[in-house]
Amino acid sequence: MAALFRRAALVGVGMLGGSLGRAMLKRGLVKEVVGIDQCQGVLAKAVSLGAVSRTTASLPECVGGADLVILAAPVVAVLELLPKIAAHLAPGALVSDVCSTKGAVLKQALACLPESVTFLGGHPMAGSEKDGVEALDEQLFENAVYVLTYTVRNALSQQFVRLLEQLGAIPVEMGAEQHDRVVANVSHLPHLAASVLAEVVAANSKDRKEIIRLAAGGFRDTTRVALGNPQLWRDICLTNRGELVLLLDAYLRELGAVRDLVAAGDENGLLAHFQRARDFRSQVPLPKLRKNGQPTWA
Amino acid sequence: MAALFRRAALVGVGMLGGSLGRAMLKRGLVKEVVGIDQCQGVLAKAVSLGAVSRTTASLPECVGGADLVILAAPVVAVLELLPKIAAHLAPGALVSDVCSTKGAVLKQALACLPESVTFLGGHPMAGSEKDGVEALDEQLFENAVYVLTYTVRNALSQQFVRLLEQLGAIPVEMGAEQHDRVVANVSHLPHLAASVLAEVVAANSKDRKEIIRLAAGGFRDTTRVALGNPQLWRDICLTNRGELVLLLDAYLRELGAVRDLVAAGDENGLLAHFQRARDFRSQVPLPKLRKNGQPTWA
Repeated sequence: MAALFRRAALVGVGMLGGSLGRAMLKRGLVKEVVGIDQCQGVLAKAVSLGAVSRTTASLPECVGGADLVILAAPVVAVLELLPKIAAHLAPGALVSDVCSTKGAVLKQALACLPESVTFLGGHPMAGSEKDGVEALDEQLFENAVYVLTYTVRNALSQQFVRLLEQLGAIPVEMGAEQHDRVVANVSHLPHLAASVLAEVVAANSKDRKEIIRLAAGGFRDTTRVALGNPQLWRDICLTNRGELVLLLDAYLRELGAVRDLVAAGDENGLLAHFQRARDFRSQVPLPKLRKNGQPTWA
Repeated sequence: MAALFRRAALVGVGMLGGSLGRAMLKRGLVKEVVGIDQCQGVLAKAVSLGAVSRTTASLPECVGGADLVILAAPVVAVLELLPKIAAHLAPGALVSDVCSTKGAVLKQALACLPESVTFLGGHPMAGSEKDGVEALDEQLFENAVYVLTYTVRNALSQQFVRLLEQLGAIPVEMGAEQHDRVVANVSHLPHLAASVLAEVVAANSKDRKEIIRLAAGGFRDTTRVALGNPQLWRDICLTNRGELVLLLDAYLRELGAVRDLVAAGDENGLLAHFQRARDFRSQVPLPKLRKNGQPTWA
């Protein structure tokens, strides 16, 4: 199909950015992708993997002249990038990001960016604990929900929606506030539950060898996300503090109640707890698969 | 190869029992498997799936004359079965179980069973949240650790070890006390972390639709085990209370500390936490795969 954008600036070429760059180029959805990354070594790899058409070390050069600007960096870096790119954006450009929290980014974008450009927050519910451009996957977005947050000032761009659809993604519109509340439930609280679990188990040094030997599917799956990038998750916590503290408090309360059921040997209370947990978890449908048969986060 | 046991009694023909029965029969490791289950409907399925050679409704008939007795029921049921089978066991029979906690079963076995039989506790670190004989998998034990707990009175049976090796399993000897401590870390605490997570997220009814829509890999993996059988997990909690309460208290303390880091926006504290969690999780090696390429719990 005809290119939807002429020139995409890719600011940050990690696993997500690299996947997006290569997926857009391969399908001819953009004519060229100009990449920049704070880590110079990444750029040569990005070129050889087909994630970008060319690279630059200059942020103004990267974003100037682009009709699509994708900020594919952790959220705190994106908050710092927005004022830096503002003066260099071409009028009419569409600016988007891929961050896991949307409220802080949207607020910063509205405060920094000129009215001549459109900002549309984006969050692909794809990816994994894997890091770096070498983990890119041009099929990453197939059948993955891609949340778009916009404001009255910055309307939904049908051109960007079409681009996402061409990548096989499922665009879902949502307010930034609701997005941050929902992902606190489905992603941020689960992440902290997992990372704290890993830390608590790690503290049992006496049985370390046997613990690692016996760790099977339950432990691996429950703690897989704890393999994620520490900086990225620090940033997510810092930019979704309000929702996360509310949920952590609820988790602490409920966990304390279940701890008391275990201590008391309360058969009926434990059974009812496990039944409620299973009832809810059963409502989460099986994952949609990508064309290669893998789930959207594998 | 020549059969290692003449007649196996399979008391409980669910996913684990059924997998074991079919795997032993298919490989000719036992001449026949006689199955019994408290649920009558299960037995016809078990026969048609090749999990048992024949069935009976009489527990004395099932275990009498068997040289191998496998109690493949949830742990509280096994505690009740042991005194019931004691008088009917053939001298020299080997009795084993597949329960997730070993201390209570071993104590009960030593108290109930005659000295003419051998009791060897068993715990295959395989399986999944799937339930019932229709979920059986004759390759379930391939490359899976199979813990064996024995006492001085009841020595390790080399015949049973050979049987497990023929199933592709990795027998690991461990004291019952250490086993229960280790699985509290790698299985029971992770399970409660997951089930409480599911229950807390379920409580957010306002965003229910969006939560289910956005639940991706992180949420699915972190909470997969919450799909497990509620009775089974109630029994596990009831028979590993001491270790589990200790670990739950440690989890509550650490979770409270991380909650305070989030509330305070403590960048360095959060980064250090996520790094420690990743460091430990990275030490858990990639799963060994079965011959069909699936991990041992898929």
